[in-house]
Amino acid sequence: MKMTNSQREKAEAFRELHSRNRPLILPNAWDVPSARIFEDEGFPAVATSSAGLMVSLGYPDGEVIDREDLLAAIRRISKALTVPLSADIVAGFGETPEAVVDTVKATINAGAIGINIEDFVHATKLLHSIPDQVEKLREIKKLGSTMAIPLVINARTDALRFAPGDNDQRLQEAIRRAIAYRDAGADCVYPMGLTDAPSIKTFVEALAFPVNVMVRKGLPPIGELQQLGVARVSFGPAASYAVMGFLKRASREVLENGTYASLVDGAISFDELNRLALPKS
Amino acid sequence: MKMTNSQREKAEAFRELHSRNRPLILPNAWDVPSARIFEDEGFPAVATSSAGLMVSLGYPDGEVIDREDLLAAIRRISKALTVPLSADIVAGFGETPEAVVDTVKATINAGAIGINIEDFVHATKLLHSIPDQVEKLREIKKLGSTMAIPLVINARTDALRFAPGDNDQRLQEAIRRAIAYRDAGADCVYPMGLTDAPSIKTFVEALAFPVNVMVRKGLPPIGELQQLGVARVSFGPAASYAVMGFLKRASREVLENGTYASLVDGAISFDELNRLALPKS
Repeated sequence: MKMTNSQREKAEAFRELHSRNRPLILPNAWDVPSARIFEDEGFPAVATSSAGLMVSLGYPDGEVIDREDLLAAIRRISKALTVPLSADIVAGFGETPEAVVDTVKATINAGAIGINIEDFVHATKLLHSIPDQVEKLREIKKLGSTMAIPLVINARTDALRFAPGDNDQRLQEAIRRAIAYRDAGADCVYPMGLTDAPSIKTFVEALAFPVNVMVRKGLPPIGELQQLGVARVSFGPAASYAVMGFLKRASREVLENGTYASLVDGAISFDELNRLALPKS
Repeated sequence: MKMTNSQREKAEAFRELHSRNRPLILPNAWDVPSARIFEDEGFPAVATSSAGLMVSLGYPDGEVIDREDLLAAIRRISKALTVPLSADIVAGFGETPEAVVDTVKATINAGAIGINIEDFVHATKLLHSIPDQVEKLREIKKLGSTMAIPLVINARTDALRFAPGDNDQRLQEAIRRAIAYRDAGADCVYPMGLTDAPSIKTFVEALAFPVNVMVRKGLPPIGELQQLGVARVSFGPAASYAVMGFLKRASREVLENGTYASLVDGAISFDELNRLALPKS
């Protein structure tokens, strides 16, 4: 796919969504129809969920998936959307900044205009050093300029989960990392596991910069997140978890009661499903 | 993938599920985790939904999808299941019996032990002639013997939707076709659109052979289908329709109310989702 004005416009529109006075609600899809439903329902942009997307293709979350399979899925989804698409690229599928930049370039070429990039190694749960991660972010930022696509970089830190120390030490480490990533050129920072209002408040105040939180049990409602100054609320894999829970309930209804209410009530039609294969017209 | 005893055993087990005194309930999946959820919940076999699977990859239903993309998806799903998998191959991706047989062979090599094959052309909605369809079924039947895989052939007819005449004439044409397909070596016949109890009764009595009906609004519950002598009840694309309806409701809750109950209540966990990437252990 060649760089088009339309992709640049999408990047600019997506960037703008981070500086309004209310949070951007960003749903994470895993395949074409989930992404298209989100666009149809009115979300102004869509992201991918790494766990949701990878499991849908038979890979566990992380960098087990073949990079080309991930890119092909991003390409399928971006082709079906008219709104901007941000792609989760895990930790960038490479040890060196060059390798990570190569992944980002391929991701933009697959149609995405934003990325999520993590600062830990899935397989070992070890955090990359701050200087290493900062160097990667700087190089990614440069790539955006080179390609003339104002790529939106969402820098995720897993310090709240995997840094040493107690909860407070982890929060401080997450803030330290987020500040470093912000200063290296990230457009939004994403502390995985930030859920409770007091910690969100501390984080947003320390950063004075767009912060991304993820939907999970206990996350305050959107109105409260707006008051806390959160810039972006993403679903993460929540919609994948919810859909699988729904399928379990529907399965049990059929197997235990011999009825199909969960399958037919509130369902969309064949024509509606079929239309989700192609861009909204 | 080489033919293994395990694949043969799956074919035999699947065949057996059609001759019990209660219907086989066969859920149609579209990706790895949907298939794995169905296996986990206790269905003894899983099928693919052509519409669900194709739309999930960005193709409308029919034979628009590249055949290799369809086969890759069947391979991904069969690799993740320990129960038998039956694959929908639309009308076989070819005009000649040889071409259709080649598709069936590739489908078995992708891990499936059963197929659904239709008697109409998606693009034109025209029914193939009975002799043409019979020849294809005979050749497919031979292939099963050649490969020593007792492939289960579910012969679908779309006469209830696309044959000329009024409802009764269409029902008679569907029965005529189903009898021809049965006699050509099909293991089950699948009159698309057969939903109401009186027509099901007429059909099953005329065939005296395994008949497949599909879940849709108005289909009698399993208990009644059992009394009517139905051998197999498949979901078709119903679970895909239902999941998309569910995603619409969850989207509206977040966008309109700013809350996430649909996304978090009754959802599965990260570990549960991740486990769905791999075969049940």
